[in-house]
Amino acid sequence: MLGGMQDFELRVPRLIEHAAREHGRREIVTRWADGSKTRTDWAGIERDARRFAQALVRLGLRPGDRVATLAMNHAHHLAAWYGAIGMGGVIHTINPRLFDDQLVYIANHAEDRVLLYDRAFQPLVDRLRDRFTTIEHYVIMDPGSQSGAGGEGDSTFRALVDAEDGEFAWVEGPERDPCMLCYTSGTTGNPKGVLYTHRSSVLHALAEIQPAVFDLDTRSVLLPIVPMFHAAAWGLPFAGAVAGCKFVFSAVNDPPVLCDLMNRERVTTSAGVPTVWLGLFAHMDATRISPEHLRLVTIGGSAAPRAMIERIMRMGVRVNHAWGMTETSPIGTMGARSPDWDRLAFDQQVDQVAMQGRAPFGVELRTVDDEGVVLARDGRSSGRLQCRGPWVIGRYFKAEEAATDADDWFDTGDVALLHPDGTMQITDRAKDVIKSGGEWISSVELENAAVGCPGVAEAAAIGIYHPRWDERPLLLVVRKPGSMVSEAEITAHLGDHVAKWCLPDAIVFVDELPHTATGKLLKTALRERYKDYRLAAA
Amino acid sequence: MLGGMQDFELRVPRLIEHAAREHGRREIVTRWADGSKTRTDWAGIERDARRFAQALVRLGLRPGDRVATLAMNHAHHLAAWYGAIGMGGVIHTINPRLFDDQLVYIANHAEDRVLLYDRAFQPLVDRLRDRFTTIEHYVIMDPGSQSGAGGEGDSTFRALVDAEDGEFAWVEGPERDPCMLCYTSGTTGNPKGVLYTHRSSVLHALAEIQPAVFDLDTRSVLLPIVPMFHAAAWGLPFAGAVAGCKFVFSAVNDPPVLCDLMNRERVTTSAGVPTVWLGLFAHMDATRISPEHLRLVTIGGSAAPRAMIERIMRMGVRVNHAWGMTETSPIGTMGARSPDWDRLAFDQQVDQVAMQGRAPFGVELRTVDDEGVVLARDGRSSGRLQCRGPWVIGRYFKAEEAATDADDWFDTGDVALLHPDGTMQITDRAKDVIKSGGEWISSVELENAAVGCPGVAEAAAIGIYHPRWDERPLLLVVRKPGSMVSEAEITAHLGDHVAKWCLPDAIVFVDELPHTATGKLLKTALRERYKDYRLAAA
Repeated sequence: MLGGMQDFELRVPRLIEHAAREHGRREIVTRWADGSKTRTDWAGIERDARRFAQALVRLGLRPGDRVATLAMNHAHHLAAWYGAIGMGGVIHTINPRLFDDQLVYIANHAEDRVLLYDRAFQPLVDRLRDRFTTIEHYVIMDPGSQSGAGGEGDSTFRALVDAEDGEFAWVEGPERDPCMLCYTSGTTGNPKGVLYTHRSSVLHALAEIQPAVFDLDTRSVLLPIVPMFHAAAWGLPFAGAVAGCKFVFSAVNDPPVLCDLMNRERVTTSAGVPTVWLGLFAHMDATRISPEHLRLVTIGGSAAPRAMIERIMRMGVRVNHAWGMTETSPIGTMGARSPDWDRLAFDQQVDQVAMQGRAPFGVELRTVDDEGVVLARDGRSSGRLQCRGPWVIGRYFKAEEAATDADDWFDTGDVALLHPDGTMQITDRAKDVIKSGGEWISSVELENAAVGCPGVAEAAAIGIYHPRWDERPLLLVVRKPGSMVSEAEITAHLGDHVAKWCLPDAIVFVDELPHTATGKLLKTALRERYKDYRLAAA
Repeated sequence: MLGGMQDFELRVPRLIEHAAREHGRREIVTRWADGSKTRTDWAGIERDARRFAQALVRLGLRPGDRVATLAMNHAHHLAAWYGAIGMGGVIHTINPRLFDDQLVYIANHAEDRVLLYDRAFQPLVDRLRDRFTTIEHYVIMDPGSQSGAGGEGDSTFRALVDAEDGEFAWVEGPERDPCMLCYTSGTTGNPKGVLYTHRSSVLHALAEIQPAVFDLDTRSVLLPIVPMFHAAAWGLPFAGAVAGCKFVFSAVNDPPVLCDLMNRERVTTSAGVPTVWLGLFAHMDATRISPEHLRLVTIGGSAAPRAMIERIMRMGVRVNHAWGMTETSPIGTMGARSPDWDRLAFDQQVDQVAMQGRAPFGVELRTVDDEGVVLARDGRSSGRLQCRGPWVIGRYFKAEEAATDADDWFDTGDVALLHPDGTMQITDRAKDVIKSGGEWISSVELENAAVGCPGVAEAAAIGIYHPRWDERPLLLVVRKPGSMVSEAEITAHLGDHVAKWCLPDAIVFVDELPHTATGKLLKTALRERYKDYRLAAA
């Protein structure tokens, strides 16, 4: 051989080792569900992680085994991730907001052997314990005194960890070993598991701390509002270790608690779905208290309304608009500022942030039409968004077939267009697009325009069979309390925002709309409910 | 198999593909040696790189073959790197400042098949052509009309590239394939080759763009003053592609040219060894013209004097003090700001920057004493600095044995101490330490204190044999022009800065001091010259 550089497997335990060694005293603060607050640091998290790894070995777990969590964001959850992964296991974060049948399917499909859960989920655990076929050990994660009927015999995370001495060497192995399992909560069929590897998680974490993405260094104080059971809290528990930043976790997402934590702990950086920011705004309006130290807010999970982006930017806070999915670890694009940012007017800056941003190194994007022909990056041609890269899924857990085509392209199910400068703009979910006479009408565009109409609380657009046009839009509207907004008023408002041929053929007022466990509109249920609806003009 | 994420080899051509695809219009500006200025962009660099790769194949080169450059920083050099690497070759950057015998040794040892050179090095090429035993093709890189006697028959980079159509698919292969070869100019023995791999270069580039290191995104305008033949210009040509930043290259390092480029091209970020900043200061003092858009300056290669750091910081520019070597790709540590930075007084901030900073994720550091015992990170225990990680050398090119111990620790030859917060502080080169009665006296500390004395231009401290103490310091001083500073005055000055037992036993005034090709003090020559020197007290 000629010579060369060192071997160094990209394994997740190296992240916690780095954080403990180089940033050992940087704090990890938790505000627990019972209102108490505790402080540890990266050295403390590593100590707990090693002891938890020992405890898992004592319970008989072997490398590759799955360790499940039903838990909110807190220091024990963080230590459990690094401990389970460090003993060679696979941490499996279950979304407690799923329906019972989904929870049972997921835990059994994953063959989880241990379930770590927060006291808040004791009723859930008691209800489903008999249906979980593979779980041998139940462990209560968070401190507190309240406990349900069935939890008396379950051990606690603290007791397990305190029984060990921490003399544990991280399990070594190839960097393509699995380390984490996250199920997607699709709107149809059973949830599917995405199996992250050590390599994909480390590369994703390295990419995340760059200035154009989460912009993290040891000076950052990071409060991830996105739960650790949503695509690994967007990978932040790994990225935070690379950067050595201070973490502030809250096990509850009440706006007053979050705002108070942000100010007391001097939080610089936060990340969450659009609804959490709406809650925070309401709190700010009611109390006149604002987060004082915020510097960067990332909004993802679903598209951020323009007014939300504008409001945060007017607070002097940088806004990143992110796009991704569980299958992409999840960072696909990030709305970083362009080279000409400083020369743009404020409205132009908001326009830029309102799009989904650009792909960092590692992610490759393209759009294709219905025949699979690759579309131009012209800012006009909308098509199915596909992506590939080292933190993009290859195959779902236990699936027989690849999740991609032969060239590794993963079809995201989103419809988007790419601008010449690489900026990506989501226009719709592929299955929600309304196909009218060979043209595509974006349901998202109609819904966004409709909620901008005074008196409209929420709206959903779906395609209804039409003998001539194949499909035409039906708009379902939930009025705000007390509002009497009419179909004509909404149509007039829409006329100012969408092309005439995209206007809905009918508007139906409803009391509420169905949602998925993660808060997204459940369009499948709507399409089923209105499948026999006949448009007047048809 | 269970499922998992996609395969994606970390290959250097992915960097240029990313830059061309996502940041294709971001500019690459060159100020050539002949005074002309050209502009291309990342898409243009990729086009040239693919055509150059085709040209190399046409010349008969095969994957693994070495392509050498004797060139300054410019767009053709950048395209040549990506082209040679993209055809599976190994780019070999030769330092033109080396002595003839070293140049001949290096080119022959590397078995270079092609030599790309700038017109300025035509005399060198003409002089050594007959002694280069493996070079088959000579290519002039830069535009211009001046050419030497022997260069008439050599082809030019532009002509080679323009003859191709760019229809070339990058050569695929394992990420641990070599991509680049850099020789270290040691002070003893033959130069040794460090063989970077695709994997090490990509990981290093990903690490470099993070906020705590070079802090690069597409808004950055980067002028690397460090030459591309010095540890790959500290990896910036790769990092710049990851970030998609604008590059400004200057083929000459005259302060007026650099300062003019910085202002015209709105350079935000620069990097170079201490001497270039001294030159820039003199220009600023003489003309009252300063770089207006600089935001971050990185100083490395050798330790930056405190006064230099202070002056740049007073310009409102962030200063990063870096430590590394060719064997570490080269980033070992970077002087990023600590969490409490904003609460520090200016002097404390300068103190912090004056140290060598902290290890980013991927680099692990330790210090050991003469018996190999690992020392505490206590900010006091000085010992030999060792490091390991994915971009640290495993084995020198063609070497029989590893460059590391069995646990991958590479001994850097530096003497340093580690502070409790992970900050590393270089105290000396191991071979330059003066060992007095079992204690170590830092030659660097003596030299830095001496050059702070009015009238002293340069100083070198070496150990002289002493019958009782084993070694005692001798200080060699070059006076500033016209200065008559005395031994007593220097000793008095030193007494304010170093411990009494570290004061030199004698001071000798000399007209000049010997330097290596890269401008470092040639202590081996000094020790040889003064080996028979007898201290008066001995």
